[in-house]
Formats: sequence, structure tokens, C-alpha cells
Amino acid sequence: MAAAGEAEIPNKRIILKDYVTGFPKEDDMVLTSCTSKSKVPEGSKAVLVKNLYLSCDPYMRARMSKPIPQSYANSYVPGSAIIGYGVGKVVDSGHPDFKAGDLVWGLTGWEEFSLISTPQQLIKIEDTDLPLSYYTGILGMPGLTAYVGFHEICSPKKGETVYVSAASGAVGQLVGQFAKLMGCYVVGSAGSKEKVDLLKNKFGFDDAFNYKEEHDLNAALKRCFPEGIDIYFENVGGSMLDAVLLNMKVHGRIAVCGLISQYNLTQQQGVHNLFCVVTKRVRMQGFIEPDHKHKYPQFLELIIQYIREGKITYVEDVAEGLESAPSALIGLFSGRNVGKQVVLVARE
Amino acid sequence: MAAAGEAEIPNKRIILKDYVTGFPKEDDMVLTSCTSKSKVPEGSKAVLVKNLYLSCDPYMRARMSKPIPQSYANSYVPGSAIIGYGVGKVVDSGHPDFKAGDLVWGLTGWEEFSLISTPQQLIKIEDTDLPLSYYTGILGMPGLTAYVGFHEICSPKKGETVYVSAASGAVGQLVGQFAKLMGCYVVGSAGSKEKVDLLKNKFGFDDAFNYKEEHDLNAALKRCFPEGIDIYFENVGGSMLDAVLLNMKVHGRIAVCGLISQYNLTQQQGVHNLFCVVTKRVRMQGFIEPDHKHKYPQFLELIIQYIREGKITYVEDVAEGLESAPSALIGLFSGRNVGKQVVLVARE
Repeated sequence: MAAAGEAEIPNKRIILKDYVTGFPKEDDMVLTSCTSKSKVPEGSKAVLVKNLYLSCDPYMRARMSKPIPQSYANSYVPGSAIIGYGVGKVVDSGHPDFKAGDLVWGLTGWEEFSLISTPQQLIKIEDTDLPLSYYTGILGMPGLTAYVGFHEICSPKKGETVYVSAASGAVGQLVGQFAKLMGCYVVGSAGSKEKVDLLKNKFGFDDAFNYKEEHDLNAALKRCFPEGIDIYFENVGGSMLDAVLLNMKVHGRIAVCGLISQYNLTQQQGVHNLFCVVTKRVRMQGFIEPDHKHKYPQFLELIIQYIREGKITYVEDVAEGLESAPSALIGLFSGRNVGKQVVLVARE
Repeated sequence: MAAAGEAEIPNKRIILKDYVTGFPKEDDMVLTSCTSKSKVPEGSKAVLVKNLYLSCDPYMRARMSKPIPQSYANSYVPGSAIIGYGVGKVVDSGHPDFKAGDLVWGLTGWEEFSLISTPQQLIKIEDTDLPLSYYTGILGMPGLTAYVGFHEICSPKKGETVYVSAASGAVGQLVGQFAKLMGCYVVGSAGSKEKVDLLKNKFGFDDAFNYKEEHDLNAALKRCFPEGIDIYFENVGGSMLDAVLLNMKVHGRIAVCGLISQYNLTQQQGVHNLFCVVTKRVRMQGFIEPDHKHKYPQFLELIIQYIREGKITYVEDVAEGLESAPSALIGLFSGRNVGKQVVLVARE
């Protein structure tokens, strides 16, 4: 139950200074001190949470830009806190589904304490024996993205060849492992030797390459897939997509999850090989996780079982402290993170 | 039955002089006189046909280029006859399924008489009360292309908005009419006032525009589809596709049938708005008619019924004489044809 309370608590938040054009910089965001109410206002159905982990995800770049009609994510409001997925502990609740002490994940602010006025989007965390940070990744939005993206959008069959770009990221590492569990031949690409080693030695990809060391992406893909690619899980866009199109097999499928190479460009790169979509009868399908939220319970049950049985492994890159969040987010776009990028705001 | 015969008959054919780069010209092809055997060689299962109608189709441009691994159609052999769909009358047959006098359609040579060594691809024409030329179009490959492309690839629903580019062509005019029969709102574009009038007044499109008179294709599509496009039947590519992507509705579908604006470019235009595939969760699906040949009988039954009931109308542009074939084919790429381009080689 929400109780009236005039008490204020000190809070800190990361605000967006102004809309961003081109490559975002750390100082596009600023850490500010403020105070917040220590209780949910009386009569409100809001929930006050203490944020424990915040998630850095590539889609957030779109929300830093000026509003455009084609975006799927609303722009952030300059001067207000960055919004993203996070894990928190309920401090006070005006909503009957939540009570103080509950652990939840969902959209929250980049701040120590957030008053969440749309608590219906929060999901209560029942399985607390796994690391809580996992709910920003493998057990959260990126996990469901990988699951529906691979199993539903890609229509995979045993023995097919699968290529994953940005393969060591939050989504890519899971897609590769789902594909291996299904009996596919899986190749991933990433941007450093360390990540390529992770793909091959930790996540069990059949092969992997560092795209930054390939002068000719088309040749790299031909080397890895002499018979062509059945399934491409697209996280990158631009010249990578062009090279993939040349290497798709007839009736191949491309799940378009993201186009991170394009997010910071003021002028999008052209894709020139779309004629392959006809000649190879390729299906390209864009998707976003919120359309598939109803599958979360079945996904969660499966993925927790996989983790417990050791069938799926997971790597995250944890930045310590709210003040490290801007740098952690920016790092996604230069590929500085190794594994899923998380920010630890507070231990329980 | 094939009979031995040494007799020769005079023949004429259109040969490809050499592989074509860029925009094809009439004199890339040449009319030559020759002689052919008047009978199928003894023991052969070939079929000798007298060609009556030849089909000019955009995909043929790909076959005029040097072989490239990404093409779906084998290149023509310089010095040999152009190959394409046509309607012919069997003169002599070594194949048990065909006899002299049969009317057939399928792949044939651009010549007066063709010895067809793969007669299994020929389809016998049973319904001869409709114009025979229709088997190069509405009753042939373009018809089946429009049918499977719209009904299967586009997953249309009553009330949806449909945009067709190159809409007065062989495929486009049928797609628009199928969409109207299904209860969709249909807009087409074409390259002249005459074609736009056809779309609106003959084929029953709800609206149509001349893309050559639009400075801003994005604005033209916003005017025609203030609520956005559910289905785009793509015949064009390039900047048209870019404009369409900006105007797609969430969960829209794009059937990629062809990209005629790109066929004669030595460097493909870039497509810059693929981020809309993610933000609007668009499905883009390439397809070609040969993958769907098994549906021809059911299609033929339906389309003949539609024609007889006056539910579907059809416009063709008939060039007279084999010698007019090169010019007719070239005309496709400047949009000179009004309706399906056919070449009349001989009346029965």
C-alpha cells in the first residue's frame, strides 16, 4: 500500500543533454544530483524502485535522436533521465501487483531511484537464484529477441548454415547457441580477437572471424560458407548485409534484428545487392521484441532450464556505478563491450 | 512419331551478338536467315514447333549479361538465338506427349521454327477459345507470377492498402485486379498519362500516378496512402523502394518480383531506408515463378473463369513480325509498351 510521505531522498540520474546527431559522446549525457520522494504519492498506482542493474542496448541510440516518424522508439526528452531496461527492487508500491521488496525488471530510468508510473510493464522476478543482472540480457529483452528472432523469424532446420553478425553481443551469443542446439552449422563475426575466441571457445560456434581484419567481407563469407548461407541473423546492416546477400542460398532467410553499423550515420549507407532477394528468393523479415512479449513465460521456462543444464552459457560486461553508464552505452557503438553490457547501480 | 527427313526449311532467328553491359540496344541483337530441319531427327524426343507469339519479359535482360554467380537465369550464348517464353504449334514431334498440330507454350527460341530438345517444359494449350497470345501473359508465366506473388507472398487481407509499381505491365495489371477482387484499396504507378488512365479506367485501380511527374516519390505515396501501405508489389527497385519503405505500415509485406529500374545499371543504386524493415517489422520476400509451377493448373482454371466472367481484363501490346522483336524487348526498359509486350511471329 502506498503511504503518504513528504520525505525526500537523495537521488542521482543520467540525463540526455540534447538530441544527438551522428556518433554519441559521453558528454551528451550528464550525471546530476537531485532528490526524489521516498514514497509513492498517495492514491497513485505508481511503483518506486531502487535500480540495481541498467541495460545498455543498441536500440537506445534511436531514442537519443530527434523524433522522426519512422522510428519505433519514442525519443528521449532532453533534460530528462535516459530510459532503458533495468532490474530493480520495489521500495514502495501503489499497485496491487507489487509490494516493497519485490524484485522486478522492465523499463526504468537511469537513476538510483525511479518512480515508475506504468508498473504494468514491470515483470516480477520469481527465479532469484540466477544473477539478477541476467534479467537485462539472457532472461530479459535481448534473450526473448534472440529466441523469437531465431526460432520464429528464421524458420531454422537442422543442418542449415547460420551466420550471426555482432555475434558476441547480448543477442548474437544466444542466437549462435540456439542454432547449435538445433543442429545448425554456425559462424559468427565480431570485432576483436578476444571476441572471436569467445565465439569459438565459449559459445561453441563452428567458426568465427574478426570482420575488422577482413578486407573483403564477401570473400570471408565465401570461405566460411562455401555452399552459402541459409540463415542470416542481421544485427549490423550496411556493407555486411551487401556481402551476405551475395552469399545467401536459394530460399534463405534474413532476420533483421538491428542495423548497428547505421545507427550513428547521418546518411544511411546504401545496400546495393537487393537483386539477390529475387534471384535467391530470400525472405527478409524485420522484427522487434515487444511484438512477442506474450511468449516470454514459455521462453523464460526454457532458457532457465538450458542455463541450469549448462546447455547455454552467457557472458556479460558489467560496468560499476551509475556514473559509468554513459561510457558503457557509447562503448556499444565502437564494440568496446565484450558480451552483454550492463551497469551495476547498486547491490541489493 | 518422328520421321526421318533430310528436308530443310528456311528459318529466321534473332541472335544475341555479344553480352550486353548497361542499357541494351536494338543492334545488340540481329536478325539472321538460316535453314532448319523440317523434321525432328530420328530417335530424338525433341519437338519441332512453329512459333506464333514470343514474349518480351524484363527478366530477359539478366540473360543478356555475362554469366554471374548470383543470377537466377542462365546467360544467353552470343551467336545463338534469344530464348524466351512463347506460343507455338507443333510441326513434328519425337515426344509421346505431343503431336503435330498441338498448340503449346513454354520456353522457345526467337525464331520462326524451333527444335525444342526439352519438350517436358512445354505445356499443351487446351483452352483455345481465348487469344493464343494470352499464354505469353495472363495465362502464362506473368499470370502465375502475379497470382502466387499476390495471393501467397503478400498474404493479403480484405481492406488492406496495396501499392503496385510498373502497374500497367504484364504482372502489375493483374496484381492490381487480384487485389481489387479481394477488397483491397489499390494504387498503381506507371510512366505515362496513358498508362495511368488505363490503371484507373480499365483495370479499376482506386488511384494511380505517373512516377515520372513526381518530384518526390515519398510525398506522392503519402498523398495516395495517408495511413500507409500494407502491401507493396515490387517490380521496380531503387529510389521507388526507398520511398515505399518510408511509407510502409507496421507488419507490411513487400513481394519482390523484379527490380526493373536496376537491370541496366552497371552499378546498382543503393537502398538507404532498410531501417524501416526493423522499425515497421516489414517482411520482404523475393520469389520467382518457376518455384510455383505446380500451382499452374489451379491458377489457369481460376483465371480463365475470371476472364470469361469479365472480372479480369487484360491489355497487351503486340508488335508484328519477328524482326520487331529486338525493338519490342528494348522498349520494356524505357516503358514504351502499354500492357504486356508480345511479338506476333505468325498467325497459325
